[in-house]
Amino acid sequence: MDRSYYFSDRANKMQRSVIRELLKLTNNPEVISFAGGLPAPETFPVEYVKRATAKVLVEEHRKALQYGATEGDPRLRKKLAEIMQRDGIDADPEHVLVTTASQQGLEIMAKVFFNPGDTCIVGLPTYLGGLQSIKSYGGVPVGVELDDDGMIPAKLVEKLDELEAEGRRPRLLYIIPDFQNPAGVTIPLERRKEIVKIARDRDYIIVEDTPYRQIRFRGKNEPTFQSLAPERVLSLYTFSKIMLPGFRLGWAYGPDWLINKFVMAKQSMDLCTPPFNQAVTYHMLEEGALEAGLETIIKLYHSRCDLMLAELEKNLGDVEGVTWTKPDGGLFLWLTLPEGMNSDDLFTKAIEENVAYVPGSAFFPMNEDHRSMRLNFSYSDEDQIVEGCRRLGKLIKESRS
Amino acid sequence: MDRSYYFSDRANKMQRSVIRELLKLTNNPEVISFAGGLPAPETFPVEYVKRATAKVLVEEHRKALQYGATEGDPRLRKKLAEIMQRDGIDADPEHVLVTTASQQGLEIMAKVFFNPGDTCIVGLPTYLGGLQSIKSYGGVPVGVELDDDGMIPAKLVEKLDELEAEGRRPRLLYIIPDFQNPAGVTIPLERRKEIVKIARDRDYIIVEDTPYRQIRFRGKNEPTFQSLAPERVLSLYTFSKIMLPGFRLGWAYGPDWLINKFVMAKQSMDLCTPPFNQAVTYHMLEEGALEAGLETIIKLYHSRCDLMLAELEKNLGDVEGVTWTKPDGGLFLWLTLPEGMNSDDLFTKAIEENVAYVPGSAFFPMNEDHRSMRLNFSYSDEDQIVEGCRRLGKLIKESRS
Repeated sequence: MDRSYYFSDRANKMQRSVIRELLKLTNNPEVISFAGGLPAPETFPVEYVKRATAKVLVEEHRKALQYGATEGDPRLRKKLAEIMQRDGIDADPEHVLVTTASQQGLEIMAKVFFNPGDTCIVGLPTYLGGLQSIKSYGGVPVGVELDDDGMIPAKLVEKLDELEAEGRRPRLLYIIPDFQNPAGVTIPLERRKEIVKIARDRDYIIVEDTPYRQIRFRGKNEPTFQSLAPERVLSLYTFSKIMLPGFRLGWAYGPDWLINKFVMAKQSMDLCTPPFNQAVTYHMLEEGALEAGLETIIKLYHSRCDLMLAELEKNLGDVEGVTWTKPDGGLFLWLTLPEGMNSDDLFTKAIEENVAYVPGSAFFPMNEDHRSMRLNFSYSDEDQIVEGCRRLGKLIKESRS
Repeated sequence: MDRSYYFSDRANKMQRSVIRELLKLTNNPEVISFAGGLPAPETFPVEYVKRATAKVLVEEHRKALQYGATEGDPRLRKKLAEIMQRDGIDADPEHVLVTTASQQGLEIMAKVFFNPGDTCIVGLPTYLGGLQSIKSYGGVPVGVELDDDGMIPAKLVEKLDELEAEGRRPRLLYIIPDFQNPAGVTIPLERRKEIVKIARDRDYIIVEDTPYRQIRFRGKNEPTFQSLAPERVLSLYTFSKIMLPGFRLGWAYGPDWLINKFVMAKQSMDLCTPPFNQAVTYHMLEEGALEAGLETIIKLYHSRCDLMLAELEKNLGDVEGVTWTKPDGGLFLWLTLPEGMNSDDLFTKAIEENVAYVPGSAFFPMNEDHRSMRLNFSYSDEDQIVEGCRRLGKLIKESRS
């Protein structure tokens, strides 16, 4: 029975996330999953959470269990601005909007910027949750190729010329500059400056989505887009990867004319992010939970990443045409198969062999790539990484011949 | 500088909630505020929260601090279905979607049902958060008059005839059947049946928003719309008023073809409602926090409501043309001024006299009424209610002459 009659046009175009459906297949405990984007639960700062919840429930429960301001807890907004200040940003707490994690930031972005049919620049590949939000408002993501240094400025100019010539001027540039999801690559300073110049010359807003920035294993961080072009950059942050995802807590930051619109849009979405979670997070930050936790996270993910790189080399180093990125941080790397192979088809076999990844097609606006896959190295332990890479290597080699 | 150029049409129409701006004026501790919709913080079941958080953090922190399913924690969904079953609904846990409180339910409703320009039946007056979500997607709320028994079926038929004749068939009927916000009125069974018949005959979806249903002081609950027409009713619930608002936890319930669409829409909004808050709430329900808390809430709000009714009678009983509703539950009553008076204008004077309410215009689709006000009786203590009613009575009498 056709029920489309009842729904909005946008609802009739909605689809269940392919990924979420795939991930259900990986619930089998036999499966070694490099598919999800889950942080390692052993890094959750449980003792800090215990102390902070106890404190909140004794000292400020009347406030923490009540409704709160849409903008967020003023104490927390100040702390979040301080985190940004330590990262070289001249951040004003008044420009911080606490969000129900950065997925809500993406939803707000899509709601305030996109009319149906409006285009948007995204990486090829890019975060599928971003694609989902943009598409859910009828936005049309248009991809710009990445290389090992992230989005390629010359390709960006080419695409903008093309779209502008067609009268399809994009609403914004959606960029994940640090340890990009899914590719794992980071944009160096010179390239950031080039992208900023392009955005300034043509008057584009940049949305900088940076959930992994603080998880750097080697080298040092490049300046944020926010610090380079504060007048036109809207930044999205989250605690999901750097502390814990179970509170659903993140924040958006930008110039007042942008952040004010975000506040208005958030009001009708959930009135406010849970004040209890905000109060607990505030006290955790006061106690240094972020710094202590990051030390653990960086050490663990660094060693898991290096192990995965070594095991891929061991199992696939001699297979012509197989390449993968070498991240300096984050949670993911990106593997490309030799020409002629198909990572969507391979997925079914992989599940049979009890190893899982996310087919790269999920990260392309039109699912147009079929030779790539995203591998997560944060969630599986060392034995699983070794065995998973062995299974994956065997599978790729066998399927190739 | 005009920045509208950067934003979507819907964002350019967004406005900061008038109410939220008004409420800022009531932050002055001298002001006795009947304006907000806050539950009394002394009713928050703090000891239950303490025990449940401690339990979760010891026994299931790896799961509760991790990402969760969009649909919600299966244990909690089962509990929520049980709450509905005890209320005479044949509820299936699989049809429960946990939401980040019922405001998110309203946002999802607006997103999945409204194309720009689509109409929607609402009460005159109705909850302003509902109006805000609907309008934020370009939906056009069309009001149907209420009386002391809620929405008037004859008026509903009239309005539907009119809209259908104009080719502006509404997307749905948005109804708050129990202790309506803001009017405080409840729809009796016969009238519910009439409304269901109208919806069935003309094939309309009903969205039943029922945050206060369990806060009944006298009489007994009427059957839910969900129980009367499960094939076409989408119900929205929240713990904000019956337990605490600071977790931002609610749920949506409906037939699978509706709830599936809601799940898809929620995915891009925040991936999932905080799993930690869900786990804590599950254990609180297990321990009986809801029943224990409701007993306290009902007793307290009952006595505050009766006190406010008595004080209004004392201060305004002899003023011709002033009327107010007599709620059997909930948090609000609705006061109407004599012809010629204006509750928007009066608000400024009220603030000067240190008493606050929400002008009724906020609850009308076009802000078209100026003779009414919403009074909240859950938040102020007894002394404040007595003194606030005295100030309000004096003000109304003086402004009248």
